[in-house]
Amino acid sequence: LAPDGTPALLYLPTLAEHGARLTLAPADSHYVSRVCRARAGERLEATDGCGARTTLLLVEVGEVVVAEVISVVREEPERRCWLLCGAPEGERADWLVEKLAELGVARFVPVDCARARWRRASGRKGRWERLAVAALRQSRRSHLMAIEEPAPLSQVLAGLPAGGPRWLADAAGGRLGPGSAGTGGVSVGLVGPAEGLSEGEKAAAVDAGFTAVRLAGARLRCETAALAVAAWWAGQG
Amino acid sequence: LAPDGTPALLYLPTLAEHGARLTLAPADSHYVSRVCRARAGERLEATDGCGARTTLLLVEVGEVVVAEVISVVREEPERRCWLLCGAPEGERADWLVEKLAELGVARFVPVDCARARWRRASGRKGRWERLAVAALRQSRRSHLMAIEEPAPLSQVLAGLPAGGPRWLADAAGGRLGPGSAGTGGVSVGLVGPAEGLSEGEKAAAVDAGFTAVRLAGARLRCETAALAVAAWWAGQG
Repeated sequence: LAPDGTPALLYLPTLAEHGARLTLAPADSHYVSRVCRARAGERLEATDGCGARTTLLLVEVGEVVVAEVISVVREEPERRCWLLCGAPEGERADWLVEKLAELGVARFVPVDCARARWRRASGRKGRWERLAVAALRQSRRSHLMAIEEPAPLSQVLAGLPAGGPRWLADAAGGRLGPGSAGTGGVSVGLVGPAEGLSEGEKAAAVDAGFTAVRLAGARLRCETAALAVAAWWAGQG
Repeated sequence: LAPDGTPALLYLPTLAEHGARLTLAPADSHYVSRVCRARAGERLEATDGCGARTTLLLVEVGEVVVAEVISVVREEPERRCWLLCGAPEGERADWLVEKLAELGVARFVPVDCARARWRRASGRKGRWERLAVAALRQSRRSHLMAIEEPAPLSQVLAGLPAGGPRWLADAAGGRLGPGSAGTGGVSVGLVGPAEGLSEGEKAAAVDAGFTAVRLAGARLRCETAALAVAAWWAGQG
């Protein structure tokens, strides 16, 4: 158990096959032995963040923890959502990344737009990935949110997976209808940067199959809109 | 216009009647003259945060700004939502307050629960109120989110307004149905603290008319759940 009483979940990107023995990395060993105060003979869950869910039997618990894989289950995501997002102000993307990962977004795609480009995204990527891993463990998911490098909106629109509903956050859009979250394909949400999308960008999104939807009865900050799209999508599941 | 090109909105809790002259406080005067670079003769919008929306005509713009109220409109909220929330970890309530205010929540009620009490809420109240004002201006609302002092859950449940749907965030609850946001009365969301609600507290909430709903296919952090409830409610408007 984790200190808060909930079952612990380890993130081990290189999970081995059933029956294999794993030597945990120092940080994971520390977590198991010191934070969870687990003992040899106890069991622990782990995921590789790509759908594999494993039960580990703790063989040695000390400075270094050794565990044996005693079961592996693969989980396919029932629903998937990509979130395309223009640059918010300041450091607001940090908590956005955390919250999107908690809500189960599959892929976070920072988009460079006419009125705003992502400036520090490459410097933040390591931090974002750590936040996504923490959210995965917190929410006990089996799929780690992927985080892309920023790319121009036109390029991102051209590379979206086919099928699935697409929403563009727009205070002038229609209401989010019940059931519009769909169940097939990848759902895609697009939120402009703090400065907004240009008219040309909005038109390009509509051409790419996006429907303009309003998320609240007022203007929302970029990161709030992104979160509202993800929360709404998550609530349909 | 504010520097980002959007119309500026002032928050003036003591808005006067039509025809009155107002001398703005130093911070507001600075904002109008230096940040927005407005000039005498221009117009500006203001709200008292209680539903009054005013157009001001700038009479003098300098160190001190003097404005005349040239129109007043009262706006009643069409829908209202109260958010009852247990204590999250660390400083996470700060951005929660900001986001709830942006999404249009009418009242934020910190609730003390069996497993966690709000510790620094009174010290944070001034900061939260500033965040709520900034969110009001950002999202151009006419109603400022009210922020209550922390109170025990039982006391809060006993004091809720009658009518309106009530949801309890619970990973074991039912799906959020379309249209369950309702249109009459005050909608109320309840989210337990990071440590969760006790079984007795959940039962008391159900007795008080709350329906357990799950917000995503996984455990959410306290503040993420509160935000998901508010975003879902806002999206129905």
